[in-house]
Amino acid sequence: MSRYVPAVELVERAMRGEIAAIGRLISRAEANVSEAREALAAIYRRAGRAHVIGLTGVPGSGKSTMVATLTQRLRDKGSKVGIVAVDPSSPYSGGSILGDRIRMSDLANDPGVFIRSMATRGEMGGMARATLDAVDILDIGGFDTIIIETVGVGQDEVEIAKASHTTIVVSAPGLGDEIQAIKAGMLEIADIHVVSKCDRSDANRTLTDLRQMMTLGVNGHVKPDWQVPVLGVSSYNSEGFDDLVGVIERHRMAVLHTELGRKRQLSIANFRLQKTAENLLIERFLKTSASFVPSIADRLLRREGDPYALASELVAASLN
Amino acid sequence: MSRYVPAVELVERAMRGEIAAIGRLISRAEANVSEAREALAAIYRRAGRAHVIGLTGVPGSGKSTMVATLTQRLRDKGSKVGIVAVDPSSPYSGGSILGDRIRMSDLANDPGVFIRSMATRGEMGGMARATLDAVDILDIGGFDTIIIETVGVGQDEVEIAKASHTTIVVSAPGLGDEIQAIKAGMLEIADIHVVSKCDRSDANRTLTDLRQMMTLGVNGHVKPDWQVPVLGVSSYNSEGFDDLVGVIERHRMAVLHTELGRKRQLSIANFRLQKTAENLLIERFLKTSASFVPSIADRLLRREGDPYALASELVAASLN
Repeated sequence: MSRYVPAVELVERAMRGEIAAIGRLISRAEANVSEAREALAAIYRRAGRAHVIGLTGVPGSGKSTMVATLTQRLRDKGSKVGIVAVDPSSPYSGGSILGDRIRMSDLANDPGVFIRSMATRGEMGGMARATLDAVDILDIGGFDTIIIETVGVGQDEVEIAKASHTTIVVSAPGLGDEIQAIKAGMLEIADIHVVSKCDRSDANRTLTDLRQMMTLGVNGHVKPDWQVPVLGVSSYNSEGFDDLVGVIERHRMAVLHTELGRKRQLSIANFRLQKTAENLLIERFLKTSASFVPSIADRLLRREGDPYALASELVAASLN
Repeated sequence: MSRYVPAVELVERAMRGEIAAIGRLISRAEANVSEAREALAAIYRRAGRAHVIGLTGVPGSGKSTMVATLTQRLRDKGSKVGIVAVDPSSPYSGGSILGDRIRMSDLANDPGVFIRSMATRGEMGGMARATLDAVDILDIGGFDTIIIETVGVGQDEVEIAKASHTTIVVSAPGLGDEIQAIKAGMLEIADIHVVSKCDRSDANRTLTDLRQMMTLGVNGHVKPDWQVPVLGVSSYNSEGFDDLVGVIERHRMAVLHTELGRKRQLSIANFRLQKTAENLLIERFLKTSASFVPSIADRLLRREGDPYALASELVAASLN
């Protein structure tokens, strides 16, 4: 084990691009240690330079492979790329990369790429808070583009993908009704729709369906000042990624120093403030309520009170 | 529109088994209207008779079709069955049932079956709270077995499946690594493992893998006083469901009036108290903080403060 380095020192090192320092700061943000708060505050004040892409899609949509190929293209253009994966099915989990993800392991050896998988468990609001802290850390660490990859199931996971400058929603052909239906809540958050696996013959139907939906303005996802494009890519054939990089750049310009961008930034600030506050509130509640829980839970079990009345009692006790 | 019926009156009607009253009470629990609280308290005091089954699995694992076949078997034995689906991909969504779910629409016409889809969006803790309220309502409405079906992605979704007397985890053959990996956190909560789609040739591998994992006690999911069985079923061939019904009954007996069951009930009470309190806390916070959010979010946007300090300020302002 290496010696314990104060967080303020890690910030200096991270700003010089030291990968180890960046990793350790993210771990401390994730662990939510109070010692790191001052450092995270300093980081926040210095961050705000990177372009943040939120990318989401249901399990099996080929998100991770797409992220790998996209990252390679951005690298070819000289961009340093940070990837923050909020996905329990992510191939980066636990530092290991699944064997069949060749492109992924190429990236893992590139110092211009930083890949980090975030835990999706923990207190409410905590995952969103820690993920946005990680984005800031990568930002001051000199990463130009930061991709937040989330699985498109669960409210927090979808919202975190939206808390970015450019949100990409990935759809795959032929996943079946049950899986596709999950996306209902995801479609409206897209700035860019990408259909993956376009080497497959059934991809055209998915492309047509999405394009038709955009034209019809179904679900109210017509965005003012931005026409949501629908692109097809194939990670297998490396096709469509030039278009994708071009569209991402076009969207980046559309939100850079514009009214559209200012609104976007304000909605991210709102989301971040809200999630951090909720995390703080629940954290305090868990601490101050702990000693009251056993006796109150026991009364609930005996039906000596109902859940709402006893929960009110617990909340009141915790706030005193 | 029908006239507004006071919640207390709906309780009386629900206890006589009136389906419309049950549905309306669940809607009010979901909407979290304060008028319903007294009624929900009365319901809680009277509930506790039904056997609650939590059933979870990743999207595409065939959960819903399995629930339909299982429900049919329980109906054949004379049991009234309530189904509460916490799953954005659920085929029951919006009251409509997807065309290819023949068995499902058979059930929809059976007065001894009640199917309800719960929203998975809303305030934190709200979904768990409302789902457990819905279970109580079905309980006093005379339903003997209540199945909570949740998609096995997302912390709350997995936890709610655990907040039951008997937790079933469904795995499907051949879903691919990316999807299967999600289940890591789900495997340990199972009282019963079911492999669906056992008409497929690759189902044997999934069965063997799971059985091996159980034998080896991987992930620490060896349960005292209960040997977790691994069963195969095929909804297509209607095979394996007699065994499943038998195993469910065996587990029901194992938790009925036993020390194992008391521990289980206490952990459900803890979970319910916690989630209801968190929901209450966040609900109050959203109300009391709303007027402070715009100016504080604006300061965050201008980087005049960091997320943690400004969130602390927001929490403090909301508590005064």
